[in-house]
Amino acid sequence: MSKYSIGLDFGTNSVRALVVDVSDGKEIATSVWDYQRGEAGIIVDSRNPHLARQHPADYVEGIEACITHALKEAADVDGFSAKYVIGIGVDTTGSTPMPVDKEGEPLAFSDKFGDNPAAMAWLWKDHTGFAEAGKITEQAEKTRPQFLAKCGGTYSSEWFWSKIWHCMKVAPDVFEAAYTWVEIADWIPAVLTGTTHPERVKRGICAAGHKAMFHSSWGGYPDAEFLSSLEPKLAQVRKTLPDKAFTVADAAGGLTDEWAEKLGLPAGIPVAVGAFDAHLGGVGSGIQENVLVKIMGTSTCDMMVTSLDKDLPDIPGLCGIVPESILPGYYGLEAGQSAVGDIFNWFVSRIQPGGEDKGTHEVLTEQAAKIKPGESGLLGLDWHNGNRTVLVDQRLTGMLLGMTLHTSPAEIYRALIESTAFGARVIMERFEEYGLKVERVLTCGGIPGKSPMTMQIYADIMGRDIEIAKGSQTCALGAAMAGAVVAGKKAGGYDNFDDAVESMTGVLDTKYVPDPDSVKIYDELFGLYKQLHDTFGTREYSQNLHHVMKTLLNIHDQVVDETS
Amino acid sequence: MSKYSIGLDFGTNSVRALVVDVSDGKEIATSVWDYQRGEAGIIVDSRNPHLARQHPADYVEGIEACITHALKEAADVDGFSAKYVIGIGVDTTGSTPMPVDKEGEPLAFSDKFGDNPAAMAWLWKDHTGFAEAGKITEQAEKTRPQFLAKCGGTYSSEWFWSKIWHCMKVAPDVFEAAYTWVEIADWIPAVLTGTTHPERVKRGICAAGHKAMFHSSWGGYPDAEFLSSLEPKLAQVRKTLPDKAFTVADAAGGLTDEWAEKLGLPAGIPVAVGAFDAHLGGVGSGIQENVLVKIMGTSTCDMMVTSLDKDLPDIPGLCGIVPESILPGYYGLEAGQSAVGDIFNWFVSRIQPGGEDKGTHEVLTEQAAKIKPGESGLLGLDWHNGNRTVLVDQRLTGMLLGMTLHTSPAEIYRALIESTAFGARVIMERFEEYGLKVERVLTCGGIPGKSPMTMQIYADIMGRDIEIAKGSQTCALGAAMAGAVVAGKKAGGYDNFDDAVESMTGVLDTKYVPDPDSVKIYDELFGLYKQLHDTFGTREYSQNLHHVMKTLLNIHDQVVDETS
Repeated sequence: MSKYSIGLDFGTNSVRALVVDVSDGKEIATSVWDYQRGEAGIIVDSRNPHLARQHPADYVEGIEACITHALKEAADVDGFSAKYVIGIGVDTTGSTPMPVDKEGEPLAFSDKFGDNPAAMAWLWKDHTGFAEAGKITEQAEKTRPQFLAKCGGTYSSEWFWSKIWHCMKVAPDVFEAAYTWVEIADWIPAVLTGTTHPERVKRGICAAGHKAMFHSSWGGYPDAEFLSSLEPKLAQVRKTLPDKAFTVADAAGGLTDEWAEKLGLPAGIPVAVGAFDAHLGGVGSGIQENVLVKIMGTSTCDMMVTSLDKDLPDIPGLCGIVPESILPGYYGLEAGQSAVGDIFNWFVSRIQPGGEDKGTHEVLTEQAAKIKPGESGLLGLDWHNGNRTVLVDQRLTGMLLGMTLHTSPAEIYRALIESTAFGARVIMERFEEYGLKVERVLTCGGIPGKSPMTMQIYADIMGRDIEIAKGSQTCALGAAMAGAVVAGKKAGGYDNFDDAVESMTGVLDTKYVPDPDSVKIYDELFGLYKQLHDTFGTREYSQNLHHVMKTLLNIHDQVVDETS
Repeated sequence: MSKYSIGLDFGTNSVRALVVDVSDGKEIATSVWDYQRGEAGIIVDSRNPHLARQHPADYVEGIEACITHALKEAADVDGFSAKYVIGIGVDTTGSTPMPVDKEGEPLAFSDKFGDNPAAMAWLWKDHTGFAEAGKITEQAEKTRPQFLAKCGGTYSSEWFWSKIWHCMKVAPDVFEAAYTWVEIADWIPAVLTGTTHPERVKRGICAAGHKAMFHSSWGGYPDAEFLSSLEPKLAQVRKTLPDKAFTVADAAGGLTDEWAEKLGLPAGIPVAVGAFDAHLGGVGSGIQENVLVKIMGTSTCDMMVTSLDKDLPDIPGLCGIVPESILPGYYGLEAGQSAVGDIFNWFVSRIQPGGEDKGTHEVLTEQAAKIKPGESGLLGLDWHNGNRTVLVDQRLTGMLLGMTLHTSPAEIYRALIESTAFGARVIMERFEEYGLKVERVLTCGGIPGKSPMTMQIYADIMGRDIEIAKGSQTCALGAAMAGAVVAGKKAGGYDNFDDAVESMTGVLDTKYVPDPDSVKIYDELFGLYKQLHDTFGTREYSQNLHHVMKTLLNIHDQVVDETS
């Protein structure tokens, strides 16, 4: 008799429920529910492009809507019954922290703050705290360099402390009313298991370690002295946070009777501690040691794991190195490119080369596929949305070099794709430079299924076989796997993630193998890319040019300020 | 009673005759005749994209056709009569040398060689002699550096000796049959005056000085020893060349009876020695000391004159510094940008941003005009067709930097225009660095009349008032002015060019004045441009990056070679 697990995947605009067969990871049913509030689920502010919030009611309503619908669909599958569901896992965006009161109730649920964006969840892409992020980085560089070493050397405006501190400045009433702040990755499992009280909510190591500077070597969250040096009130928040964080192999608790009834699921089945979508996507892709998992979509997330037994140095430029953030028993390492598919989309949708009909992805791909490596004479830097890894610098911009009067749109399109592949290789080489081995590259996300040409270019430039994960919804699958692991073998699940990965994940037959001739040319081009990368991206390499993109952005800011 | 002069302007695809009133330069009548042979007048070779020739029969037929037609049109003008035409001037493309026999007859007129492209005129844009150009530069660097100092440091494949030497290699029968080689700028006035015999044809200083390394300080054309060191047979050609070259203030002779009858003009009226179109365009624009004349079209030609009394140093990177090549009594200095309008046309016609309707020059200009200096964050290098001045390097390519996911086609369009204006400023500053003063910038060509936005950007970036020459056909007007000067004051013309410029040229009322706010921002951007320019364009500045564009082109060549 088959057992089932449910993965709940909270995205930027919608939430998805995926019901899978625990024995082999087969997708039984799935359902997506769009958030109802704001613009496609995001509360925005026309006066402030940096602001992006979400109302937690969307999360709660979404749980019921999409699980109910998925179960209804699953009911048609032979052998399925809701009573055979043994566990639930949750992944969310992040860092998406939310202020809650002393009872763990979101302030956004109160009459007083119901419409106040500051009282809602501060969505991952909210950048309002950029000034605070800068100050945190500056202060940590001086007094706690170890904090930065684990998160790539720069604390981001997207992260936990930047957002809380910014709230204190712009919405002191909300800040004062909040007892503590909870990542939605932690809050949602707590909702399902009735453990939202601040003393009971289990904080996941994934969010804490990657976004809130949590590390066991310095006793968990940043110390009160450091936080006080930024702002004494932040030390108050620190007091509400626990000393321990949990992995996705830990259960947040059992499904409450109330939720069990509402959803038609067995009461008490375990709900795993939550983690970020990308990380559980790595799990759902089948992450293992010596495998680089790349989630390739509008941006990328690049992940590896390596045994905790290993003596792992800090790796400059990596977004995070956190013990057990992806898989228990392993360091989780996260890197990423700020824009990949977004760059191709920019060219097609914003520049619209060759007109609306002639400049589609399909047409440009067909033409670009005929161009040989090195033939166009073009070379680009893929920094249209800054550089996350390894430069960790938002204030870098794109570049294209080598244009002649004959350069065609398809040549530019291919050069843009190549530039992102060079960026991917820089990340891979950084991993390897610090002792990890990349034997396989395993991809998932929107691009691998859509563009064989892109995948071949990546294989040729990275010089690795490139495989594609079997699961079509790897984040939700990874969450469901966490549900199966917290259920345990006795209940029909697994006792550990190694076994779950072995049984529940796999790759497609299609595999992209490097072409030796292309590899040779691309190796040469990569040398040039690296030179441009280091010249414009690092201070060490060329004091002369490091400033160029930043100065242009400063001038832009100044011009726009003056005229607005 | 008004007197008239005729300017004959031999372009790349057609010849134009312009009849002007000598008293004020007013255009009385004009006529254009398209060359009949080849593709739009150019003999090409599908197997060799570098080859571009013209048949001299097109020149001879063109003279008759367009003068006859212009005179017919002029006949309707009150007071005009062909008998009041007092002189003729000629401008042509160049370097466009042509092999002739011992009698001065073009080999292309013989039965034996009539269809042989090697026996025709080697059009300015014929690049078949690039290997020979490289060897000439190399040898001159070693033994005659002074030759290069006058022509920007690099001998071009477009020039006299490269073409002759290449002919020797690929068409030895033509080379052997040729007694000497004549620039069409010299040959056409000789045709009109019956002086085509090699001992009578007057060679103009403009072609000889700018393209054939003629300079009085070393006794005219390059010495036999130097030419022999390249190839002994070139020294034979040297023997057929005179020691003296003439200015446009000299008459090639008087119009022959035969031509007078055919055209309906007075016999014996003087025909000026020929010069290149750009140079007589400078004259027709009203060139004077301290005025930079820019012919702005698909590419630019930038010219200045300065008194021969001045102690003028060699100026690195200038295409040429030749005594009296533009105006008698003055050094003629020539610089230029290899592509300007061509870059804007590439973006509109080849990239076609926003589709065919939405990405026209008009639409992009309307949008780009609303963008403030510095607002786009973009900065480009205008080297899509290499860099003529001051880097003298064909193997440089375009670059654009600063793109984000929001960058629009109009922003790129404006950045391309700005990049060419920065390139123009580099040329202007090079002139000034070596002691010339640019008090006014005077423009002509296709762009000034078409794009006020471009002109304002040039004013703001160059920091100079920019004026537009009154004449709509400045090359032909300059040629007609030469006709008026060789006729002399007694005949109703002028005794010198200063007087002719004073009376026959002028500027439009529209003047573009720098905006102080824009100047400030653009000064800052120019600093960045200069840094990119020097980094990618010069060896001195950054050994690290100087090679990048060249290496990309080498890889391209290699890839294309392998697959063709």
